[in-house]
Amino acid sequence: MTLQNAPGTRDFPAEQAIARQRLTNVLRGVFELYGYNPLETPVLERFDVLASKYAGGAEILKETFKVNDQGKRQLSLRYDLTVPMCRFIAMNPNMKLPFKRYQIGEVFRDGPIKLGRYRQFTQCDVDVVGVKGMSADAEIACIAQFAFAELGLPATIKLNSRKVLNGILETAGVRKEKMETAILSIDKLEKIGRNGVEKELNEKRIPKQSITRIMELTSATGTNQARIDQLRFSLKSDQGIEGMNEVESLISFIPDSSNIEFSPSLARGLAYYTGTVIEAFLTGSEIKSAVAAGGRYDKMIGNFLGTGKEYPAVGVSFGLDVILDALQIAGLRQKKAVSVAYIIPIKAFKEASSIAQKLRNAGIKAGIDLMERGISRNLEYAASAGIQYAVIVGEQEMKQARVKLRNMQTGEEKLATVEEAISILASHTPSYPKSNKNTG
Amino acid sequence: MTLQNAPGTRDFPAEQAIARQRLTNVLRGVFELYGYNPLETPVLERFDVLASKYAGGAEILKETFKVNDQGKRQLSLRYDLTVPMCRFIAMNPNMKLPFKRYQIGEVFRDGPIKLGRYRQFTQCDVDVVGVKGMSADAEIACIAQFAFAELGLPATIKLNSRKVLNGILETAGVRKEKMETAILSIDKLEKIGRNGVEKELNEKRIPKQSITRIMELTSATGTNQARIDQLRFSLKSDQGIEGMNEVESLISFIPDSSNIEFSPSLARGLAYYTGTVIEAFLTGSEIKSAVAAGGRYDKMIGNFLGTGKEYPAVGVSFGLDVILDALQIAGLRQKKAVSVAYIIPIKAFKEASSIAQKLRNAGIKAGIDLMERGISRNLEYAASAGIQYAVIVGEQEMKQARVKLRNMQTGEEKLATVEEAISILASHTPSYPKSNKNTG
Repeated sequence: MTLQNAPGTRDFPAEQAIARQRLTNVLRGVFELYGYNPLETPVLERFDVLASKYAGGAEILKETFKVNDQGKRQLSLRYDLTVPMCRFIAMNPNMKLPFKRYQIGEVFRDGPIKLGRYRQFTQCDVDVVGVKGMSADAEIACIAQFAFAELGLPATIKLNSRKVLNGILETAGVRKEKMETAILSIDKLEKIGRNGVEKELNEKRIPKQSITRIMELTSATGTNQARIDQLRFSLKSDQGIEGMNEVESLISFIPDSSNIEFSPSLARGLAYYTGTVIEAFLTGSEIKSAVAAGGRYDKMIGNFLGTGKEYPAVGVSFGLDVILDALQIAGLRQKKAVSVAYIIPIKAFKEASSIAQKLRNAGIKAGIDLMERGISRNLEYAASAGIQYAVIVGEQEMKQARVKLRNMQTGEEKLATVEEAISILASHTPSYPKSNKNTG
Repeated sequence: MTLQNAPGTRDFPAEQAIARQRLTNVLRGVFELYGYNPLETPVLERFDVLASKYAGGAEILKETFKVNDQGKRQLSLRYDLTVPMCRFIAMNPNMKLPFKRYQIGEVFRDGPIKLGRYRQFTQCDVDVVGVKGMSADAEIACIAQFAFAELGLPATIKLNSRKVLNGILETAGVRKEKMETAILSIDKLEKIGRNGVEKELNEKRIPKQSITRIMELTSATGTNQARIDQLRFSLKSDQGIEGMNEVESLISFIPDSSNIEFSPSLARGLAYYTGTVIEAFLTGSEIKSAVAAGGRYDKMIGNFLGTGKEYPAVGVSFGLDVILDALQIAGLRQKKAVSVAYIIPIKAFKEASSIAQKLRNAGIKAGIDLMERGISRNLEYAASAGIQYAVIVGEQEMKQARVKLRNMQTGEEKLATVEEAISILASHTPSYPKSNKNTG
């Protein structure tokens, strides 16, 4: 027996599990503030559902874990949360629209294990199904704004529309069958620079004058409105103009658009986006990859269901791992323990136990020594466990109806009544930099 | 393609997902109040870890879902949270003890699908590893007490020790090889009654006078202390006396033992328990099965690791599904939506949108119409979505710097400033009957 994790999977001990929970609680709180309800779908799905033509596509299917049950049915582990949502919608045809749901859950990909790539990871998706208008896209962008503000991470939300990209390519005279591959190159503008993109487009045999035109059209400058006006003026494409109007309308629905950036080269890799594409980046962070991404996919659910009914949809997915990295880099103090207090009885377990209960009744997270250890070993344990305060309950303290509160970081000690101790400990509840809102 | 769930799995739409989240939040909150940290282990585990001799045993292994990865490694889906915790402890040999952790997670069993049996279900486990003394067992019992009090579900916590049961059987002259099977019958006392147990023991060829003695010893009456005294007086078994002392010590560590019941027939099916066994039952509920159960398993982790080091452990597992049923029966109002408010703009989307933002900044969960529907269709939608208040934002209301608040249940309408609306809506945050404590 190899006492190891399955390859590509991770354990999250206290410190990491606490950080993950705090983050998912903030995201969940923000999703709910916007009126999105939770949906839970199972980890196991029928293989044929995930393998459907309009599901995740061939690449992802190669990485799908297959499972057989005792009835020899072919099952699998979900590779995302979108396809299961489509199945849920199909099974609930009388559902009232719009359907606004979020789901935070584990997904599985049997792919090569590289740095930062795991076989089990968490997706945090929020989607609205049933709304054609740009107010929905704006709401999704606002959720991303709100979430990063709540987390104290300054972010820029970049927006574009696939229709704008198609319009740019039409205007530049790129042929239809080259459009998808050209979009993949343009999307790399920020990563590989202007020259890199030109080189790639050249290798893909896009004509020179088309490349020049593409580079012009994607480099509109100035405010969002200035860029929109420039592009709308230059585009010779109905689809492009439609896209520009959508982007303009989208931005107009966002109350504070100061960190919203219309970026005509933004594409997102996935082929199923039909309109808006969104990516969030952290401002002034060494993390350069997107921390949240999504867009509008008006065809996917309808195609998947095959009933002819339309299900316009738009959503965004938050990258749990990358946001956790960013929080750590931003210096968010990680907690090794949920407890604020560790109670050390000195020959007074029952009194200490009753004090513990008073703290808990007041909402203070407090462990108590169960090992009957001496005070110095107990202090060592509390220190190594990362607990902020030791509460020493001994005969001496009890005589004065006091406990001894020891700040484990400073070593400072203070006699306090239980009520005083509660008020000191209560002020040590963790919060994010800007988390003065009740997102619970 | 069959657009269905994998057999034995369930979707949890908003109403159920909200109820599940509220329940797991309460449990999580209580576990943390006692200083237990979260641990997250993955869904996928190596098959040989789960198949280890000292893991879950042959019965459970038959029901283990097997998964192969692209590297042809045999993996599987975890069937419980205890074996992964053992693996985690093995991989972290320098871990400071006691190790107090909780985990709420999905587990998988490929068994026959019956009413109330699922192939994916949630376990909520809380365990302390490294403490021999009964203060740990008492803490685990207190966690169960606290959790059901917090949920507003009156419960009785039944306690016993395997040592007491063994002592009863020794005293009754049952041979060693018959003990395990006799225990399984005695455990059914409440379910099948005295006659039923006698009949089973008889079929198992336990001698008549032994059966009579067993029935005497398991039917001690009176207060916990009276039962303890009676049994201690009657038991002719060192192990039994040791067990009695442990039970007495355990109960003495519980500050309020009014709903603690020493029950000498309580056994719990699982063979790995070595001392204390615990089961929680709801008082005056139609739900007769245990809602939480656990006990002490001092050998399991050490055997599993095979290093000779001892890892005494005690824990309890809460039954999410059965507790949800109980909450529903107890009349807990289920919520169909997280939102308290649904904002209906009448030709005033931007004003309405800015009001929505003010509500959210104040922690009010509020959706807004994105479909530009008329007021009556919007009210229908809010009603069917189960949202308590509609907030109507129209030109008329805006002129008076007011919004119209409509209580969707009573139909009552009221003009209010945004600040007034916030304070009315804030008072509608859901809580459990007795949840005045901060367990967030």
